[in-house]
Amino acid sequence: MNPVELIIKKRNGINLSEKEIEFFINGFLSGEIPDYQMSAFLMSIYFRGMTSEETVALTKIMLYSGEVLDLSLIHGKKVDKHSTGGVGDKTSLVIAPIASAAGVVVPMISGRGLGHTGGTLDKLESIPGFRTNLSKEEFLNVIEKIGVCLIGQTKEIAPADKKIYALRDVTGTVESIPLICASIMSKKLAEGINGLVLDVKTGNGAFMKTLEDSENLAKNLKDIAEAFGVKTIAYITNMNQPLGNFVGNWLEVYESVKILKNEVHNELTELCHILAGTMIYLGEKAPSVDEGIRLSKKLIENGKAYQKFLEIVESQSGDISYIENLEKYPEPKFKLEVKATRRGFLNKINSFEIGMLGIELGAGRMKYTDTIDPKAGFIFYKKIGNEIKSGDIIAEIRTDKENHEYFINKFLNAIEITDDKPLDEPLIFKTI
Amino acid sequence: MNPVELIIKKRNGINLSEKEIEFFINGFLSGEIPDYQMSAFLMSIYFRGMTSEETVALTKIMLYSGEVLDLSLIHGKKVDKHSTGGVGDKTSLVIAPIASAAGVVVPMISGRGLGHTGGTLDKLESIPGFRTNLSKEEFLNVIEKIGVCLIGQTKEIAPADKKIYALRDVTGTVESIPLICASIMSKKLAEGINGLVLDVKTGNGAFMKTLEDSENLAKNLKDIAEAFGVKTIAYITNMNQPLGNFVGNWLEVYESVKILKNEVHNELTELCHILAGTMIYLGEKAPSVDEGIRLSKKLIENGKAYQKFLEIVESQSGDISYIENLEKYPEPKFKLEVKATRRGFLNKINSFEIGMLGIELGAGRMKYTDTIDPKAGFIFYKKIGNEIKSGDIIAEIRTDKENHEYFINKFLNAIEITDDKPLDEPLIFKTI
Repeated sequence: MNPVELIIKKRNGINLSEKEIEFFINGFLSGEIPDYQMSAFLMSIYFRGMTSEETVALTKIMLYSGEVLDLSLIHGKKVDKHSTGGVGDKTSLVIAPIASAAGVVVPMISGRGLGHTGGTLDKLESIPGFRTNLSKEEFLNVIEKIGVCLIGQTKEIAPADKKIYALRDVTGTVESIPLICASIMSKKLAEGINGLVLDVKTGNGAFMKTLEDSENLAKNLKDIAEAFGVKTIAYITNMNQPLGNFVGNWLEVYESVKILKNEVHNELTELCHILAGTMIYLGEKAPSVDEGIRLSKKLIENGKAYQKFLEIVESQSGDISYIENLEKYPEPKFKLEVKATRRGFLNKINSFEIGMLGIELGAGRMKYTDTIDPKAGFIFYKKIGNEIKSGDIIAEIRTDKENHEYFINKFLNAIEITDDKPLDEPLIFKTI
Repeated sequence: MNPVELIIKKRNGINLSEKEIEFFINGFLSGEIPDYQMSAFLMSIYFRGMTSEETVALTKIMLYSGEVLDLSLIHGKKVDKHSTGGVGDKTSLVIAPIASAAGVVVPMISGRGLGHTGGTLDKLESIPGFRTNLSKEEFLNVIEKIGVCLIGQTKEIAPADKKIYALRDVTGTVESIPLICASIMSKKLAEGINGLVLDVKTGNGAFMKTLEDSENLAKNLKDIAEAFGVKTIAYITNMNQPLGNFVGNWLEVYESVKILKNEVHNELTELCHILAGTMIYLGEKAPSVDEGIRLSKKLIENGKAYQKFLEIVESQSGDISYIENLEKYPEPKFKLEVKATRRGFLNKINSFEIGMLGIELGAGRMKYTDTIDPKAGFIFYKKIGNEIKSGDIIAEIRTDKENHEYFINKFLNAIEITDDKPLDEPLIFKTI
């Protein structure tokens, strides 16, 4: 086999065998195939796509380029959730303790925020002392002890993905469904899970802007997971406004704790119950998703999910006093009120713009090396469909930075107030 | 400007401005844009193509990455010919002296053979002593003295093409019309010519197998040349069999000399007169192509073209005794007769296979570093359409290598003898 021949084959639209994909990926990892051949290969995949057989083969090779956790000694079904990323999406913080409290084993390996979307690791790390960089042994120990652990990707997991992703990022080959799927699934499957809930976001705050693209992505992800024997349910969910009322790392921990303490009931709470209920069903702790949702609600009501959250924080060296007394957390220098300049109905929130403004406040990063201010973010007092009087406070911006007029104007530019009440949009567009 | 943004722009089918193309090519040349970004960019161009404005801009940037000859001090129009490469194509050796004898200035920069096609430089260098690696000063001196010179590409000419071509070769991005056009024309235009004859081959021995592809290439090449003010006439010519009866470096010099001495009149002779006649017309030494062809024939008949060829050989340090006495040239170790195994008509010659067999005989190379045996090659005694009796000698194979049975069988596999006489094919499919 010869790398140029394989590039030309894919370029000409001929499907590659598992052996050929393996030759290319392993050659790239070993350094025998240089990055300029890999980038031409990736661009050919961008244009020609991949069959599901090819995508599964690519995922398999990337998965076994690293370590796959063996959780077989830990009793019970292992289930995780993956979200394609949105604004204000703190569901992991709520559903990991719920599912775990139901008896499902949750070995959750998450990512950091990049661009307009947040990351579970950054949110957790806003809790003083909380460690997400556990070693594999520590991770397994925590799971054995309390049935759940949330960490970042270790260097042992899918090194091929790391090397390929770094190249995709600088060669215009990120936006390819098979490459996205193989990247996501090679990392998820390394967790050694039996079940997976997929939350594929769609809308102005999601990577996939249209329902069609989101469905396509969801189907592809599900096909791969099931080819590896992982039972999967995918939801296409609404990301046309931030999820819940709080956006920003600590602010999202705050809202999660409020939900776990049964003090908040909004669309975020509803989504959390659907996702947690599905994890409970896939983890065989309920005979149906509906029964799973019922159990999820019960575990909030009886305080067991909240207790599990405290256990997680404690097991990962976090200071639970900040959870038990949320008001103890440091305050930002500035709390800016964003007031409505007219009356009407809140019709649109451009979640992408809100996410990008979050970066300027200090709540996010453009590069992995940027630092984050955990206190920065937004509190939304109004969401889409709410009636607004002129002068009403729509949101509060929290930041240590100056430049307040600019922040407020940018926020106002990201929303739309109209005379007519907008039509209700569903929370879940589709189940796949 | 940012290289990733430009890759994505081209990938998404948006046309690039001259400034953007310049940024990318110059960044690559200076080393600021790495080869992995260039290869992704090239693959995007492969899939999305380029408008003629983009191709002209690319050509311009590549052309001015190096030196452009200034022949303004040399009196008369400067005209060259470019062929896209075929088997047995020795027209340059015949038409350069004809056009020059007609008073046209011919600053001809040629290439070497690679793969199944031969190269003018290798053919010339089969003449003992002949130098093609003249410096720019020597080149200009010879042109000033005798009006014609044939050399190889100097390192000063289009260095961008050299660097980009090396990358295309290993990244599956060779077969792209705009990239091919920019590569060819950036080198041709560096000759400082006023006119250009294009010989775009089509058929089983050409890079372009179909008339449609060849026409497309010819039109694109002509458009670029004319955008630079170079008057151009393009011919789509037949490459469904080797051109003439001799294939191999010295054997092609031999046949060229025979034509120049008015001793051979075949389809090669006809093509030479058309190409030379067109050069004479573009060089303003005849009022029409037809008059140019008439003059071309006259310059063969009166011996002036042959005299010019001797002048060329002498000016470039070649030993003219081998031209004046062709039989003086060393003989190959083996002359193998290929005999017909059945009667009928010669219906097909797979010129690509003949070219590839030539490499095995020692007449060509797979890599630029391979050495060539100038004596090796083929003499065709039969061409397409000829009637054949069983046992007739179809061709003679010349080589120093053993493995004779294999050579003969491979040759026989590359031809087809049928009961019916094949239809005549035109020599020139189209003039553009």
